[in-house]
Amino acid sequence: MDTSPTAHPEISSESGSEIRPAAGGAAGSRDTGRDDFRRELGQQLRVDSVRCSAAAGSGHPTSSMSAADLMAVLLDGYLRLDLGALDDPRNDHLIFSKGHASPLYYAMLVAAGSVSEEELLTFRRMGSRLEGHPTPRIPPTDVATGSLGQGLPIGVGIAEEIQRLEHVASRVWVLCGDSELAEGSIWEAFQHAGWAGLDRLTVTIDVNRLGQTRQTMLGWDLEAYVRRAEAFDWHAITVDGHDVAAIDSAYAEAVATVGRPTVVIAHTIKGKGVAAVENQNGKHGKPLEDPEGAIAELGGVRHLRVGLSLPPGRSDGARSSGSADADVVRIALPSWPVGESVATRQAYGEALTALGDVRDDVVALDGEVSNSTGTEAFARAHPERYFEMFIAEQQLVASAVGMSVRGRVAFASTFAAFLTRAYDFIRMAAVSRADLRLVGSHAGVSIGEDGPSQMALEDIAMMRAVHGSAVLHPSDANQTAQLLAEMADRPGISYLRTLRGATTVRTPPEEPVRIGGSRLVRSGEHDDVTIVACGVTVDEAVAASVVLRAEGIEVRILDCYSVEPIDAAALRAAAGQTRLVVTVEDHWPQGGLGEAVAAALAQTPAHPPVVRLAVRTMPASATPREQRALAGIDAEAIAATVRAELSRAEGEPHRLSR
Amino acid sequence: MDTSPTAHPEISSESGSEIRPAAGGAAGSRDTGRDDFRRELGQQLRVDSVRCSAAAGSGHPTSSMSAADLMAVLLDGYLRLDLGALDDPRNDHLIFSKGHASPLYYAMLVAAGSVSEEELLTFRRMGSRLEGHPTPRIPPTDVATGSLGQGLPIGVGIAEEIQRLEHVASRVWVLCGDSELAEGSIWEAFQHAGWAGLDRLTVTIDVNRLGQTRQTMLGWDLEAYVRRAEAFDWHAITVDGHDVAAIDSAYAEAVATVGRPTVVIAHTIKGKGVAAVENQNGKHGKPLEDPEGAIAELGGVRHLRVGLSLPPGRSDGARSSGSADADVVRIALPSWPVGESVATRQAYGEALTALGDVRDDVVALDGEVSNSTGTEAFARAHPERYFEMFIAEQQLVASAVGMSVRGRVAFASTFAAFLTRAYDFIRMAAVSRADLRLVGSHAGVSIGEDGPSQMALEDIAMMRAVHGSAVLHPSDANQTAQLLAEMADRPGISYLRTLRGATTVRTPPEEPVRIGGSRLVRSGEHDDVTIVACGVTVDEAVAASVVLRAEGIEVRILDCYSVEPIDAAALRAAAGQTRLVVTVEDHWPQGGLGEAVAAALAQTPAHPPVVRLAVRTMPASATPREQRALAGIDAEAIAATVRAELSRAEGEPHRLSR
Repeated sequence: MDTSPTAHPEISSESGSEIRPAAGGAAGSRDTGRDDFRRELGQQLRVDSVRCSAAAGSGHPTSSMSAADLMAVLLDGYLRLDLGALDDPRNDHLIFSKGHASPLYYAMLVAAGSVSEEELLTFRRMGSRLEGHPTPRIPPTDVATGSLGQGLPIGVGIAEEIQRLEHVASRVWVLCGDSELAEGSIWEAFQHAGWAGLDRLTVTIDVNRLGQTRQTMLGWDLEAYVRRAEAFDWHAITVDGHDVAAIDSAYAEAVATVGRPTVVIAHTIKGKGVAAVENQNGKHGKPLEDPEGAIAELGGVRHLRVGLSLPPGRSDGARSSGSADADVVRIALPSWPVGESVATRQAYGEALTALGDVRDDVVALDGEVSNSTGTEAFARAHPERYFEMFIAEQQLVASAVGMSVRGRVAFASTFAAFLTRAYDFIRMAAVSRADLRLVGSHAGVSIGEDGPSQMALEDIAMMRAVHGSAVLHPSDANQTAQLLAEMADRPGISYLRTLRGATTVRTPPEEPVRIGGSRLVRSGEHDDVTIVACGVTVDEAVAASVVLRAEGIEVRILDCYSVEPIDAAALRAAAGQTRLVVTVEDHWPQGGLGEAVAAALAQTPAHPPVVRLAVRTMPASATPREQRALAGIDAEAIAATVRAELSRAEGEPHRLSR
Repeated sequence: MDTSPTAHPEISSESGSEIRPAAGGAAGSRDTGRDDFRRELGQQLRVDSVRCSAAAGSGHPTSSMSAADLMAVLLDGYLRLDLGALDDPRNDHLIFSKGHASPLYYAMLVAAGSVSEEELLTFRRMGSRLEGHPTPRIPPTDVATGSLGQGLPIGVGIAEEIQRLEHVASRVWVLCGDSELAEGSIWEAFQHAGWAGLDRLTVTIDVNRLGQTRQTMLGWDLEAYVRRAEAFDWHAITVDGHDVAAIDSAYAEAVATVGRPTVVIAHTIKGKGVAAVENQNGKHGKPLEDPEGAIAELGGVRHLRVGLSLPPGRSDGARSSGSADADVVRIALPSWPVGESVATRQAYGEALTALGDVRDDVVALDGEVSNSTGTEAFARAHPERYFEMFIAEQQLVASAVGMSVRGRVAFASTFAAFLTRAYDFIRMAAVSRADLRLVGSHAGVSIGEDGPSQMALEDIAMMRAVHGSAVLHPSDANQTAQLLAEMADRPGISYLRTLRGATTVRTPPEEPVRIGGSRLVRSGEHDDVTIVACGVTVDEAVAASVVLRAEGIEVRILDCYSVEPIDAAALRAAAGQTRLVVTVEDHWPQGGLGEAVAAALAQTPAHPPVVRLAVRTMPASATPREQRALAGIDAEAIAATVRAELSRAEGEPHRLSR
């Protein structure tokens, strides 16, 4: 396979034996040697894309070949990145929004010297860092891509962090496919970036015309893309994506553009360089049938290397974790006296503000409902670290992920119901191993009159099914503040579900509250029943217990404020000491508290019956109190269920035995 | 509150006593009486918005007041709708994408005579049809709105159905707020509608400049909106949204525009007409402080009525349900011999095509992956009923909802992982009581090398938590075909999860398969363990059972192809007759098969332990077989779990007792 390299004098034919320092952008100057090198580099990227896909027996070589010249120029001339010091904040960022062009991305890493040719050929194999679509398992990848339309929005978040919070020359380079421009999230990102004037951001669109099954909506109508980009206040440049000199000029123009992001709209040919696949439908997502012939047609295997450089400017070293001393944070947290009535969304806002007072890495983003979520308190106290994302939940989450890439501790908030809008982004954030803190207010039917469109009733299920997530639903203000501080220090995805209405403060400020924990609200030595609740239903459970005690039924109440991970030990203990478990939640029955409890107890031999109260009919408008009554999750419903189940057990003595 | 009406001669001061026939569009002609009537009608809509919000003590009157004149002209001049015959296909559609302007919407229904003033004042009360945000509980509402950015995409689906499949003059009118134009889904819809040239669609943007907490991104920069709309190939008209003559001209121009959708971009004032709230920040989403004064300032309560008319043209009567005779469908379905190896995604494509042969109400939509999902078979056989939605999953689901509004039986398919992109739309489809059939291919780690971005591992949890959903995950081709036919006749939301790789056909073609059912794959009289599986894990369970039987362990296998609703009776029966239940699924443990089983058994006294095998670590690239082994959901893992749990029970005899 290893055919001889071309005659260009600067080209090394020995792997790694000669490294060409990156040329840097040189707009306007004609440098034939530089252009020749880049053309050769482009061919190498194609060859390596073909090679690794052939070795894997799958992959997207044709989608890689179209963008090879674009990425050759970027790598050789523009990308400034210290592969040996990835936490240097001066580094540029490169995001393959078209993640299926991973062969090209890995070929670039080979050329940059951070992946060996041997490793390249492990592409898509078990254990390889070179997955089918890039993930942060292979440095310098910031975020996983592969769900189209996400790389650009995350790039927008990174660019806004750099522009508003850092004083470095770092830039963000995003490669998009043309098919993914059908995604609304792309235009949501265009709109936000244009509004924010993010001139550190350059997007290349690889307009190869062909999608998976057919031509894209716009084909090669580059001017249509220009009109759209300009309408969103971007600087747009069209270019022949196989003319390295023209590409260089375009990138130089992008770097020189101030006050606006730039999009380079490149006319390219899918499968460029190999006649058997060039510009043909039906060649998407499969290795080439004759890779040896294709490699020969492309001029053979090459071993060019490019030495990347860093942006100029002072390095302030690796960013500190920003984590303040735990005691300082705890002292800083607001607290509320037991017995007070406070909405957890308000407690969240106050606690976040206090956290921001002692930790300057904390930032907040909100979807233009900050006066509803509670985030407005933070926005007032720390306006420089507040980011308004408007009614754009995908960009909200993407920006939070982007800020976490830059080391920020980002909290993103909106109505919990509207986080469903960004579920694909949240799912992918887990693949990205991102640290993402989400806060959703207005949980459940308890919001009242606004009706079901505004009610989060599936958010616990949705967030529990995100890999490695913590799903927290505090019942009072003091729990909220402490869980917020825990979230700030926790890697991975965490979610805080808050309430519109006030609940009674029951947790003493000094009582520890932790992810994975729970709280015994009340218990006795001879409890008949355990009620497991969280959020607003804790108040309902307490009200039910008062009634039941008067009837001689002893009630234990467990507040599972951490629904995921759930406190299985506490549940097993309670189940072992009572004859009945009743769960009650302001959420659909599927995937919520009740199923989490049932699953936690499922392996326990002979646990008592678990009866699950949840919202089972589509709500409409009503007051919060009426809503809970209609849903059968209020004190009366809890008490009635306990009575009915215990009296049923009288008739079936084997049923409920302690 | 009932102040005297103005002096305009055409205005009736008695509720319902005089009805003015709608004027119809009259572009170019000046009709002072008509304009005066519309101005009065606009004031009435404002007054009624103020009244109902005041009565409710909540709501969004200021967001209603900005669009009142726009809607007055639409109602009086353009909307053609027979409120007494809502299934007439000639009816226009009116969608309030800004659903929080529900006071205005209900005020329009009062003016149209379909809601009484008494009912208007029940707004937001328990039991009222007039919910905080409109739902189909109040006719003629097609779909629920209130999650911003969804009404327009659904309107696009309705308009495409009319344009491509019907021969009627029906039009679609959508009212958008300016804040919701931050949503990418809006631009996804603009892009699709422009591409499809949907000239039956007219969108009005109520540019009142103010969002919930601040000015929008673009404020009153109407030209910026024009540039964006035109860039997406729409016809754009700007207008003073309080000048009824100008509005009339704009709508007339929209109706006359051929080949392109039209957007009317209206400069409006939030809270228009009441000085205390006009054009002020901080007045969003609350009733007016002095409603009596406001009503007086607006000229008092009026009782104008508008008689709507129908579009001209022949009515072919109400659309038939399209449902073919059940036997015909069953005969038409393809089937596969037991023992054959077929991918369920392929079976889906063939079965859908066959269904389309006998039912002409069946349509299919796909997110530009029809050769992966299997939908390409339908697209080839029935190209006139296939809709390419490109890589735009929100529009994919929205269009399917829109087509169901027009009586079509729409199947929307893409990779199951990418349905997460549209979760908010799916959630809202349930609020809309829409009939929505979703098909997600490439489930789980079993897709192999492509990696986690392409793997659906949360889709069962996500879809189970949609109100009233059916979640179906067939293990073989024959189950797939029969479940598809069941979906076609089922109201509400249903979801079919299909596999990339082939599985063994085990279900005889003549064996009934039904939503809510399950299949005993094998059972004996002295089974030790029940393995509950679905999809690809049925093959794994069968392989495990062969090994275990050789070791003397008798295995029952239950194929729960209907995960929601799950066959609780079959589960209880199996649990009662075996000493151990093991669930195994290609999905995260949260909210999937295992939790559904645990929940179904949770209330059963003394059921055997339920051990749940699921994907618990983040996958990377590997072959399908390697993936299942790494995830611990293959035959070997199942067998090992059964052995370990049964032998543990030897030491703890109380643990597993039959």
